[in-house]
Amino acid sequence: MKVVKNAGQIFDIELEEDLLQRNRELALENRKLLDSHGVLAVDIMGSVGSGKTSLIEQMVSCLKARYRIAAIAGDLTTTIDAERIKGRGAEVVEVNTGKECHLDANLVRKAIEELELETIDLLFIENVGNLICPADFPLGSHRRIVVTSVTEGPYMVIKHPHIFAEADAVAINKVDLSQAMGVEPEKLQEDALSINPALRVVRTNCLTGEGVEDVIELLVNWFIGKR
Amino acid sequence: MKVVKNAGQIFDIELEEDLLQRNRELALENRKLLDSHGVLAVDIMGSVGSGKTSLIEQMVSCLKARYRIAAIAGDLTTTIDAERIKGRGAEVVEVNTGKECHLDANLVRKAIEELELETIDLLFIENVGNLICPADFPLGSHRRIVVTSVTEGPYMVIKHPHIFAEADAVAINKVDLSQAMGVEPEKLQEDALSINPALRVVRTNCLTGEGVEDVIELLVNWFIGKR
Repeated sequence: MKVVKNAGQIFDIELEEDLLQRNRELALENRKLLDSHGVLAVDIMGSVGSGKTSLIEQMVSCLKARYRIAAIAGDLTTTIDAERIKGRGAEVVEVNTGKECHLDANLVRKAIEELELETIDLLFIENVGNLICPADFPLGSHRRIVVTSVTEGPYMVIKHPHIFAEADAVAINKVDLSQAMGVEPEKLQEDALSINPALRVVRTNCLTGEGVEDVIELLVNWFIGKR
Repeated sequence: MKVVKNAGQIFDIELEEDLLQRNRELALENRKLLDSHGVLAVDIMGSVGSGKTSLIEQMVSCLKARYRIAAIAGDLTTTIDAERIKGRGAEVVEVNTGKECHLDANLVRKAIEELELETIDLLFIENVGNLICPADFPLGSHRRIVVTSVTEGPYMVIKHPHIFAEADAVAINKVDLSQAMGVEPEKLQEDALSINPALRVVRTNCLTGEGVEDVIELLVNWFIGKR
């Protein structure tokens, strides 16, 4: 089969590298700012409809008695996700990216400036629904979770190695539909670990809350580890 | 709720506009090249696992006796989709975009150069799995189909107005799972038509072939309309 590889002719590669470098610097500044207030920030990434907002809703409900929680919700134009998270009792800043397919450290910085960091323990950052570009744009968060759903088909993990390489944990979601979809969570887990053996893998149904206790355990350990 | 809007500070907006303009020019050149050989090109867009490859497989199987078909399959790094389409009897050129989240007109031009256009009637171009950036990058195709699946949740259409505004048709896929997902295809259709009243909407199960005849009818009409 003939294969054409992207050699980026119509992109200015140097400028792109400058942009990524500038983003990394801003991400480090965000991290320092969060650290100076003892905030643990967790970036939630995943494709459209994978269950990012549902997972954040579950985490807020389970943890709001223990931690003071805020969220930054990235979306192209709507406030649907932000309203849902707010409904669970977290303070939320909405970031509308317009046509941009990912959050960047600059946008997150502007959102952080809208929060009173001294009143927050745990900050969830919901990225835009996309499995590709968010991998290249660290935001300054301490940990990154990918939410992926069995309904995205059997090749979803192996087609997106970059994002799994950059993540600390993956939630394989909508496990109740694995039989109907003919997609085995075991195979997705195997694929994810073959890309990144250090990944923590949990299986969830974020609508019912099944498996969410495993995510909570990870979060609590990360929080303790940070102190 | 506090809302932060993207003002693009870390991006060079002018350069981005230059890039989009250059892409539009290259897309027009692609269109002319395709027209000079009487090829109808259809761009298939949609999120990860929505069913783009399955739809192309179905279309190739249904139409290969009538038309000479080729495909360009865009993917980050793998050749999975390309192999599947080839298995149905179409000539396929694979385009690996690396870390880029969409095809562009330059990559499509390079792929077209690998094909013998005089031996082709119908060219399917499978975009990278992403509902955001492909909307901004016309490729030179004559028509654009979005494949979206009920498993992507109830807000998928209203969250991605740009891509539906740019499309000619939408296939609402995996309709067999609408009850299990609690997502109504009627509502997705309504949302899509509210964004773009000229959209042709079909409902499909691309694994069984349900509803694919409606897509075939569209394609045949587009082909006749082009002649």
